[in-house]
Amino acid sequence: MATDNAAESTTTYVADFMNKLVSLCKRRGIIFQSSEIYGGFNGFWDYGPNGAPLRRSVERAWWKYMVEDRDNVVGLDSTIICAPMVWKASGHVDQFSDQMTDCKDCKKRWRVDQLPVPGECPACGSHNLTEPRDFNLMMKTYVGPVFDEEHKAYLRAETCQPIFVDFNTIRVATRQKLPFGIAQTGKAFRNEINPRNFTFRSREFMQMEMEFFCEDEGSLDWFDYWMKQRWEFYTKVLRIPENKLRWHWHEKLAHYAKKAVDIEFEFPFGWDEVEGIHHRGTWDMSQHAKFSGEEAACSVFNPDTKESRFPTVVETSCGLDRICLMLLCNAYEEDTAATQKADKDEDIRVVLHLPARIAPVQAAVLPLSKKLEAPTRELQKALRAADIRTEYDDTGSIGKRYRRQDEIGTPFCVTYDFETENDNAVTVRERDSMQQERIAIAELPGYLLGRIHA
Amino acid sequence: MATDNAAESTTTYVADFMNKLVSLCKRRGIIFQSSEIYGGFNGFWDYGPNGAPLRRSVERAWWKYMVEDRDNVVGLDSTIICAPMVWKASGHVDQFSDQMTDCKDCKKRWRVDQLPVPGECPACGSHNLTEPRDFNLMMKTYVGPVFDEEHKAYLRAETCQPIFVDFNTIRVATRQKLPFGIAQTGKAFRNEINPRNFTFRSREFMQMEMEFFCEDEGSLDWFDYWMKQRWEFYTKVLRIPENKLRWHWHEKLAHYAKKAVDIEFEFPFGWDEVEGIHHRGTWDMSQHAKFSGEEAACSVFNPDTKESRFPTVVETSCGLDRICLMLLCNAYEEDTAATQKADKDEDIRVVLHLPARIAPVQAAVLPLSKKLEAPTRELQKALRAADIRTEYDDTGSIGKRYRRQDEIGTPFCVTYDFETENDNAVTVRERDSMQQERIAIAELPGYLLGRIHA
Repeated sequence: MATDNAAESTTTYVADFMNKLVSLCKRRGIIFQSSEIYGGFNGFWDYGPNGAPLRRSVERAWWKYMVEDRDNVVGLDSTIICAPMVWKASGHVDQFSDQMTDCKDCKKRWRVDQLPVPGECPACGSHNLTEPRDFNLMMKTYVGPVFDEEHKAYLRAETCQPIFVDFNTIRVATRQKLPFGIAQTGKAFRNEINPRNFTFRSREFMQMEMEFFCEDEGSLDWFDYWMKQRWEFYTKVLRIPENKLRWHWHEKLAHYAKKAVDIEFEFPFGWDEVEGIHHRGTWDMSQHAKFSGEEAACSVFNPDTKESRFPTVVETSCGLDRICLMLLCNAYEEDTAATQKADKDEDIRVVLHLPARIAPVQAAVLPLSKKLEAPTRELQKALRAADIRTEYDDTGSIGKRYRRQDEIGTPFCVTYDFETENDNAVTVRERDSMQQERIAIAELPGYLLGRIHA
Repeated sequence: MATDNAAESTTTYVADFMNKLVSLCKRRGIIFQSSEIYGGFNGFWDYGPNGAPLRRSVERAWWKYMVEDRDNVVGLDSTIICAPMVWKASGHVDQFSDQMTDCKDCKKRWRVDQLPVPGECPACGSHNLTEPRDFNLMMKTYVGPVFDEEHKAYLRAETCQPIFVDFNTIRVATRQKLPFGIAQTGKAFRNEINPRNFTFRSREFMQMEMEFFCEDEGSLDWFDYWMKQRWEFYTKVLRIPENKLRWHWHEKLAHYAKKAVDIEFEFPFGWDEVEGIHHRGTWDMSQHAKFSGEEAACSVFNPDTKESRFPTVVETSCGLDRICLMLLCNAYEEDTAATQKADKDEDIRVVLHLPARIAPVQAAVLPLSKKLEAPTRELQKALRAADIRTEYDDTGSIGKRYRRQDEIGTPFCVTYDFETENDNAVTVRERDSMQQERIAIAELPGYLLGRIHA
């Protein structure tokens, strides 16, 4: 009984937390369902004025960390629709599927592993279900003037396959030698039967993947290297606390893989995957050699051994939407101990403790009075020139404005007051400590940039 | 006869120019066809290690210019697949089509307006063609467990429709009042029957659109305002010469439109559209009100008149891939007068005169000898910390390395030589003038940032 109550209270807590987060995200234009005026579209999420900058900033941080700051990783931006044979070679056309069953009475279709009562239709209670069948998760379309098998194509189910396909063109163009990596970010699509947990499992999502091509000898050292790099990305760049992350080793490995490990985050709904680091052997390159017949384009010639070999691949793969969800879950706080005078307007302070680098607004500029608009706009202009994301707000008390900025995670609020004309300084209020500091206008861009990129 | 020869020589020049550009783009990993090892995929293009940074930088420049630097425009990042009714309301499902005809003999399908000889199949010469039929250009897919009409969905044919659909959620969340704009960038898809002119007309492409919502009174002033702003973007931000751009007014207007104008660029293959600025009246919002039944979510209440009205829309719409193609065409030069000693290795200097802000590599760092690797890497690190895109190259003579960087448009080559240890300075060679200057290492990041953002 005690355990039942505990379990129930955990369930309630999770539902409550997620409801509050989802509601905040919609109310403040961070993330909301696609096509809401048409009743919404299950498994599709739009990023609004305060969500788009968050997702863009995380993507940019990943790109800088994985591509721009390295000599041995280069970038790619391939199409979402590729030649259909790519997905034949990758195994997606034949094997990327869930087991489904149809109810012969009410004609509804269900995922076998999600039937609440095995063998019974959850809609009409019938036992008259078909034998389980494979249901492919690739989204298909048609390219060209006829809608037939010959013109069938697929939306990519992962961003890594075009990397394998373009490997040789990129290797030759960049004169890279093994070991080196190719990275890309972009949309991927899966016809999930049961999208769930807000943006965690959706049908259209952003992936960020890097395929590192190396000799088989030493590939496990590279695996260890990338484990360390990716852990550093989450803890140092995105500032996720170490105790909310853990390694999860795969027990079952694909026949070609030497190792596979996930990085999991403790979401309100449980520990779940944000990233996978996978040793993929020579599987992908040998498959594409086989299906394309272009063995040379999938191999690398070693001048020492005078042999051509398929490179071994170590992959790092993460979901950008999951990372944003992790950041939001980690950042959300209801601060009941907000005792600052200026913050007393409401009982509970809702605050997103997002790292300054990825916050949608990095500095809010607030004139104490609407009379101060002109010089406050000048100040905003100077911050924009320094590439700081700003928002101007002159509505309501300063306390109310602080609260509004707290809700979207703005790390710094800059108030221009009547003293400013005399001392050429403004008040900078910090979101987390709620401390206020007087900073000279001339030093403000440098001061904020220093804090943002600290 | 003379005109024929002139026309023929122009055609040859264009083909020659485009062939050279396409070849450079592939050879240097800028842009190449998708799925090449599978024979390529017509109308789909991948951006490689030197193309992805170009496209990303132009997109980022647009986003900063249109969203981050303005208080009255906010950003959105919506899904590619939306509720199918969105495209019913927009008219795309019923009207977004080309006229097609089928050859009854060889079963091939053709666009009627592109038959070289009207009424005759270009493949088999048959006159046995079907009556012209509408062929919809939307790419379709299926979402959910069954592939039937009910589950049919579309890949967005333009990025603006989700802006209209999300209008109210965004307006409420951001507390914006008319007039204000919503902007987004992202992929769009059209099942073009005849993709052509390199990336100019492709099946998967990036759009950058902004919808400005205002009162009908004054909407033509906003139209003029956005014309000026967009012209400034091309000439000031992207540095396209004014004489290679022109206005092209639409003669036929949609019944709801008050004005429509394109910005055209003089491509090698002729003047063609890179951007459209369109007065769309209240058409889009009233259509979505009609199809969704959510009239309030498509209107704005005016407290003065106590009336709800559909906002009037002024749109700015451009294709990111076309802009990149314009930049490449404008930047490409074969410089036969490269007389500098260090540049004498080859007869013709191929150079991309790209603006420094969007160049794939902004500063190449070149050690004069491989012995100088360690301190040159340190220098590179300092430039990366300043968010400058760098490339390290120690292969071949300095002259050869300059030529390589010229081909991808690198504006600055920084050479670390044996004098550097003594004078703490490096040689900066500028791509366009080929002038060299000695710059103190301590001042280098600031010097380059100043030049890049000048």
